Formats: sequence, structure tokens, C-alpha cells
Amino acid sequence: MRTVSNISQIRPIISSAKQRGERVGLVPTMGALHAGHIALMETARAQDDFVAISIFVNPTQFGPAEDYQAYPRQLEQDARAAQQAGVDLIFAPSAEEMYGEGFATYVEVEGLTEGLCGRYRPGHFRGVTTVVAKLLNIIQPDAAYFGEKDYQQLIVIRRMVNDLNMPIEIVGVPTVREPDGLAISSRNRYLSDEERAVAPCLYQALQAGATRVRQGATGAEAAEQVKEILAKEPLLRVQYVEAVHPETLQPAEYGGPPMVIAAAAYLGAARLIDNIIIEEGTDDA
Amino acid sequence: MRTVSNISQIRPIISSAKQRGERVGLVPTMGALHAGHIALMETARAQDDFVAISIFVNPTQFGPAEDYQAYPRQLEQDARAAQQAGVDLIFAPSAEEMYGEGFATYVEVEGLTEGLCGRYRPGHFRGVTTVVAKLLNIIQPDAAYFGEKDYQQLIVIRRMVNDLNMPIEIVGVPTVREPDGLAISSRNRYLSDEERAVAPCLYQALQAGATRVRQGATGAEAAEQVKEILAKEPLLRVQYVEAVHPETLQPAEYGGPPMVIAAAAYLGAARLIDNIIIEEGTDDA
Repeated sequence: MRTVSNISQIRPIISSAKQRGERVGLVPTMGALHAGHIALMETARAQDDFVAISIFVNPTQFGPAEDYQAYPRQLEQDARAAQQAGVDLIFAPSAEEMYGEGFATYVEVEGLTEGLCGRYRPGHFRGVTTVVAKLLNIIQPDAAYFGEKDYQQLIVIRRMVNDLNMPIEIVGVPTVREPDGLAISSRNRYLSDEERAVAPCLYQALQAGATRVRQGATGAEAAEQVKEILAKEPLLRVQYVEAVHPETLQPAEYGGPPMVIAAAAYLGAARLIDNIIIEEGTDDA
Repeated sequence: MRTVSNISQIRPIISSAKQRGERVGLVPTMGALHAGHIALMETARAQDDFVAISIFVNPTQFGPAEDYQAYPRQLEQDARAAQQAGVDLIFAPSAEEMYGEGFATYVEVEGLTEGLCGRYRPGHFRGVTTVVAKLLNIIQPDAAYFGEKDYQQLIVIRRMVNDLNMPIEIVGVPTVREPDGLAISSRNRYLSDEERAVAPCLYQALQAGATRVRQGATGAEAAEQVKEILAKEPLLRVQYVEAVHPETLQPAEYGGPPMVIAAAAYLGAARLIDNIIIEEGTDDA
């Protein structure tokens, strides 16, 4: 496994892999690798011959009041985890390498970025789509892997890649959870023991909402129930609970699946997000 | 030479060329091919093994009051001109092929797009950068060719390709002119005989401005002189004359080269643009 920080070093490595006829996969990350990232890498490892990951805490996707400075950085530990997962290449650039003098170009997906997290994190998805477009152009993978935990991000990136005709498969990988149901996230480490004990209620409430949807409830009815359950937890401050169509992300004003119920809530210093995907014709979430 | 209208047909053609080790060049056009386009194709032909051109009148770069409907479309005639110029592939998609259902992604270059034409054509450069990003991703050329006549466009696209790390060389090709100095443009056909006789004054005025710059004038002084010359021509309605730095496109508040003086003027139904590039240490424009 190699770790590289300059864009110019990347090109010949990827070219060589492609000349050997290898299929290249990319897992873009902000580091602080956990079991969710490992699942992405393992999915890539199973489908691709050459697996690259990027580790870059991207300043342009953090708001001014957000946790850009506090976000965990642990490259050595991450490199060990990536090596164990069979990764071939880590691309870990500096902010200066990614955003040079005079940088002025942004990629923006309209519509899909306006609701859910987009409503509360202005500019966040513009930062995400811009940096992902750059990473896809730098690595030029055949496939890129994103977790379903960041569901809106996955849909927005799929739209961007399709709209800009990037010849890249975008693969969504199911959310990895702790045994008690909490979605694994780098931000879980911000939780105190007391908050950590409360945290699983987010997914439990989403599960209850999903049950209602499978019984024919509308998105508004399901979201209302999720909010009622979460309101009982005094440590939790709900930012939003919304039920949307899985592809358009428009409010699900109809009854029953397909639907995604997505939620964001503050628990102490941590902003937690989670979602549940309710597909048609299945009993599973 | 092949002419193809579907994106899915393009990929295997380009892949084959690249597998043969060929260098691929792209000349993006809106058709109505003229000597300026031929110069782009000949430059590509001299540098690349496989030359593709795109012909697409891109709706998103026209304002609501602009000439999208009137813009000339003449695919058969263009195909003959391209064949004579040694082009290997024409990509001529429909608007539906380029902007499918749910299209929502835009590429925007800030700063560089705010002055000059950008001030008078809101959204124009956003349309240009978005469609060029798409075309570059569809064709995946090693180099793409743009005329210096659309100077701001050339600089904006170079910025986009650099900022988004697209591994593509952007080549600027000098403006091709009629014997009397008029920059060749598809829109020159909108001119009446009387207007056509007047049109060369635009470049003549820019040349006079360039002479002043070589004598040490500031951008403001040179632009003022250009405007004074053009004001003597009653048929011409000047939109702007600005002297800017060739790379930053910021107003040239300093004296002497390097500088670009750019102008736009209406002559009847035609909006003409032209510019003169004044380099350091040369007597030529």
C-alpha cells in the first residue's frame, strides 16, 4: 500500500493499474476510519482490482460554526486500518494541494440539495459535490463507494455523476450499526457516556416510523410519529425528521413505500444523522 | 469520419482510439462552422491522432432574449467542412440527450465570469462551463481547443479544468480574421451589407488601443480611446470596452502590457465581440 499526498503522483499510479487492465475503485473519506468505512473498502475490494481511498477533511463542506477544526485527524491509525482492509493506495492531500491559488470553480446540484440536511447546512453539498468531482477526476476510478448513512449525499453525488456524464459507477453501501442500532459515525466520539446511552433512540424511532409506513401511513404521519418518540428524550434536540421519496427526495405525501425517513438531531456536541430506507415489496428496511 | 448523436455510442469509439495509443483532441462547437473553427480543427489535427468535434447549440448558455432559436443550424454542410479538415468523429447530440429528465447539476466559475461579457449575459458562462464539463467527460480528450476570440470563455474554461483536476490540456488558438480585420464569427451572417462594411472598425479601434498600451497607457486610458473611436460610428452600439489582465481578467489599472482589451458591440441584430492580446516584450498583438 502506498500513501501519496500530491495529485501529480497519483496519475502514473492509476495509469499503470489501468494499463494492467485493472478495475479501479475509490472510497472517498474524511479519515477517522471506522467500521462503516471498512464496509465501503471491503465492498470495493470485492468488486475492483485496485482500491484507492482518499483521506481529506474538506474545508468547503463545513459551515463556519461547524466542526472543521475539531474533526478527528489520525492518518497513521487510518493507514493501518486501510492496509488491513486490502487498500492499495491512500490519497491524503493537504487543503493547499486541493485548493490552489485562484481556485474559483464549484459544482452544484440544485433541487436535491435544498431539503433535509441541505436546509440546515447551507453550502455543505456544494462543498461535497465540488470535492468529489475533483477526487473523481484525480483518481478516475471505475466505481466510487458511498455509505447510505449519508443518504442525501449519495443521491446528490449520483445525480452529479449522471448529469456531468462522468463514466463512473456510484455504489451505495448499507449503513453499518453498533449492536444497539446506532449508526456508526466519526462524530459518535463526541458523545459522553450518558449521551451514548441515549443515542440508539434515533434509529429506534426511525424503525417505528418505518413500521407505520409499511402499514400504509403517509410520510407526514410517519415523520410525526418519529418526532413524538424523539421528543420524549430530553437530551436530544431534533433538527428535522422528514419522509421523502428515495430518488427525488421530495416530501412523501403518498401512503406506503417506497420512502426514506431521514433525521438529524443534536446530542450534546454531536450532530447525528440517520435514515431508514423502506423499499416496495419487502418487509426489511 | 463518423457522426454520432448518442452519448453511449461515443464511449467505445474513444476507448478504441485510446487503446490504439492515440492522442484524442476535441473541438467543441455550436456548428455553423467557419474559418475560425477550421483553424481549431487544423491545430487539433496537427497535435492529435484522433480528432473529434462536437456540434451542439447549447440552450443553457443563451439568455431568454438571445438568439438560441435564430442561431444557424446546418449539420450536413458542417459535416462536409469537418471531413475536409480531417476530423474523425462528429458528436452532434440533441438537447434531450444532453439534458435528460431531472437534470440539476451546474458547474460555475466565480470571479472570472463576473466582468466583461459575464456582466451582460447572466448565466451564460454557467451554461458554457456546464456543457463543456459534460463534453469533456463524454469524449475524455487529451486536449481541447478554443478560440481566443471568445477570450473570457477560454480563460474560464482553463480555470475550470485546472480547478476540477480534469487531466486535459486546454489550447487557445488565435482569432481568425477576414482580410479587413473583422473577427470571423457565426453571427457575422446577421449583418446587412451596410453593417458588414462598418464592422471592421471594432478591431481597428482595438488596435489603436493596443498601440496606446504599448506606449505605456493604463487600461482605463486605452479603453477610453477605443470607446472614442467607436463612438464616431453611428450604426454601432457599444456594450463594453474593458482592458484587463490576461489571466485574472481584473481591470488593468497599471500602465503597459500584459493586457487584453476586450469589447462587445451591437451592429444591427448582431452582437459582435472581439479582443486584442497585448503581450509583454513583443511588438505584435
